[in-house]
Amino acid sequence: MTPYLSRATQVLQRINELAAISEDADGVTRTFGTPAFVAGRDLVQSWMNDAGLTTRIDSIGNLRGRWPSTQPGAKTFVIASHIDTVVNAGKFDGPLGVLLGLDVLENLVRQPAALPFHVELIAFSDEEGVRFHTTYLGSKVLAGSFDTSWLSRTDAAGIPLAQAIAEAGGNPAQLAADALPAEEWLGYFEAHIEQGPVLWESGQPVALVTAIAGQQRVELAWRGMAGHAGTVPMTMRQDALAAAAEFVLTVEQFGREHHETIVATVGKLQVTHAASNVIPGEVTCSLDLRSADAARLAAAYEALRETAAAIAERRTIGLTWNLVQHTAPVTCDAGLNQHLHQAITGAGHEVVALVSGAGHDAVPISAVAPATMLFVRCYKGISHNPLENAEVADIAAAIAVSERFLFSL
Amino acid sequence: MTPYLSRATQVLQRINELAAISEDADGVTRTFGTPAFVAGRDLVQSWMNDAGLTTRIDSIGNLRGRWPSTQPGAKTFVIASHIDTVVNAGKFDGPLGVLLGLDVLENLVRQPAALPFHVELIAFSDEEGVRFHTTYLGSKVLAGSFDTSWLSRTDAAGIPLAQAIAEAGGNPAQLAADALPAEEWLGYFEAHIEQGPVLWESGQPVALVTAIAGQQRVELAWRGMAGHAGTVPMTMRQDALAAAAEFVLTVEQFGREHHETIVATVGKLQVTHAASNVIPGEVTCSLDLRSADAARLAAAYEALRETAAAIAERRTIGLTWNLVQHTAPVTCDAGLNQHLHQAITGAGHEVVALVSGAGHDAVPISAVAPATMLFVRCYKGISHNPLENAEVADIAAAIAVSERFLFSL
Repeated sequence: MTPYLSRATQVLQRINELAAISEDADGVTRTFGTPAFVAGRDLVQSWMNDAGLTTRIDSIGNLRGRWPSTQPGAKTFVIASHIDTVVNAGKFDGPLGVLLGLDVLENLVRQPAALPFHVELIAFSDEEGVRFHTTYLGSKVLAGSFDTSWLSRTDAAGIPLAQAIAEAGGNPAQLAADALPAEEWLGYFEAHIEQGPVLWESGQPVALVTAIAGQQRVELAWRGMAGHAGTVPMTMRQDALAAAAEFVLTVEQFGREHHETIVATVGKLQVTHAASNVIPGEVTCSLDLRSADAARLAAAYEALRETAAAIAERRTIGLTWNLVQHTAPVTCDAGLNQHLHQAITGAGHEVVALVSGAGHDAVPISAVAPATMLFVRCYKGISHNPLENAEVADIAAAIAVSERFLFSL
Repeated sequence: MTPYLSRATQVLQRINELAAISEDADGVTRTFGTPAFVAGRDLVQSWMNDAGLTTRIDSIGNLRGRWPSTQPGAKTFVIASHIDTVVNAGKFDGPLGVLLGLDVLENLVRQPAALPFHVELIAFSDEEGVRFHTTYLGSKVLAGSFDTSWLSRTDAAGIPLAQAIAEAGGNPAQLAADALPAEEWLGYFEAHIEQGPVLWESGQPVALVTAIAGQQRVELAWRGMAGHAGTVPMTMRQDALAAAAEFVLTVEQFGREHHETIVATVGKLQVTHAASNVIPGEVTCSLDLRSADAARLAAAYEALRETAAAIAERRTIGLTWNLVQHTAPVTCDAGLNQHLHQAITGAGHEVVALVSGAGHDAVPISAVAPATMLFVRCYKGISHNPLENAEVADIAAAIAVSERFLFSL
């Protein structure tokens, strides 16, 4: 077994150990601040301590392990990912990045290798945002962009976020103190499973992430006229479902025509008071539109909005179009990506460049620091699912690339 | 006020009195066998008694009022509709036919006019089938086609149909005895609101029903591959919703092309585990297909089944096609319809001939007796809804036509 394969095996073993800590007996669920979350974080902290890092829990509950440089005026390079999960999650989404980073630092400390910058390994406490319907709570504290109005948000049991933070060993009054000031940043690196099928299909173990797609999320309501399926002639109908179906196909067609720069999805569609013998009077649906290119994203949004309006007008159907989320695309740092590119080729792999269609902690960080990501091949691109998997050989390749990358900085 | 308008006003008043008896305070709900149902039936029975009919409750709980002929060997002509309702129903669906029939008989008895046949006015106890998910319980007993295996069906509270029949004053052991033998039938007539928009748009008060459409009801399941809306490229998707949307539009297009003989509707469509950021992996939907022409209905069914299979194959989507209901079309009796045609023109109206897209008690009756129906104009074709309405002038026209029709037999 090569050293990297053996190290990957240990990473995989830790991923499995961490995955055994869950809110429920079946599957993996560790949402922010729960006892399972704290127990999982304790385990990772013990590994960080064993590796020789100086650890602490910060005010939002992030686990931070530091290996300081002796060089005066050194900046900080952050390696991170998250250890919270969705409900009934896979084992790799988040933990892979943290435990791969731990392996790299463990070997760095063991040599020991002197670096001209501090390295901080962070296990973010909340990326998925499941419990409080938020995103990036952990990395936003690090980036200094945490919105304190969220502290009064409550979870399904009515517990406010502020209380959950305190119960998980954090301090909601001290969040601002844990931001890393812009001048102290050297950069940010995150390894993560791809959560898509491109690497799986290509057979390459890793990909360089060039950008994280921006997203427009829209909720639409189509209002026609409900009627009896047997008694209203075809020529006298205002069928809200037929209108929505036309939109679904338009979205698919648009996405296919622009497949190199766009993904477009109608994921939700609901017929109000649906019955097999009733012509649908009202249908609601969603639109999820993503692109790494802000101009293309805006153009796609406008084009689909116009098409939806035209469908509604032609069919005499009422339409409500409600933009419910908009995040701008993030471009990964060109300088860091040059290092990552060289690390990938240096490790003997072809460079696959990908846009991340999913959001990551790198999004808030990129507002204050140069950031980049490495994607790791995962089984059929499946994620947020117990079937989520990454093969040991691909993890080994990711370790080799990450280590080369860090040393090249 | 003309006599017919004044009689229509009384019919309307009785419809309103009956509608005030409901299982719930808001709206009208009188499902089979409930205390509200029995109270409503008691009221109608008191009106029948006052009108001089000989009344009884039969074994399925139908209210039957008889005005016998003195002629030896006379056959029986049945005027009927139902007094059960859907949940949150309108006031007219069912009661209009019963109370219009009551008005005609009341005037017949008052004259008194001698007829060469017995007349029986029946308020069927269950047409809608809401409580036990059945259809035509009352008229099937009259037609001798009641399936006794239904007696063990239970309602939402676990009460068997047999018990509900007994509690509503019926006798589940004697159902067969209340069938009217084929040789005793002269014919069957039912007045009913159209439940469709054709008369409303045309302005004519009544329509002659030539047939009751047959129906094919199908449940479909489309199985693609769920995936992350941000990470699976457009070219690698198997989107079950896009496949279903294509089917919805195909059904609509097919229905429009054959609008003179067919109605085709997708009324239900559900995305399994729907989320705005997940490519739909499974979608179920319904198909409701109706035609008065059995051959066209069968051809439409086959054409849409082939199209669905072609959509699924082209998109590499799994498809399950499950026929869950099939009722054959019923043609109204030509002889009775000739009388009805003359009655409509005799009353000074244009003859509108319609196919009923909704099912009615005339369906089981037509298996044993000549049957026909008269449709009455209703507000915008709206039915099964508190907005359901029929104007007094149109009810007056329906009374005049029904009376002419009866005297012409």
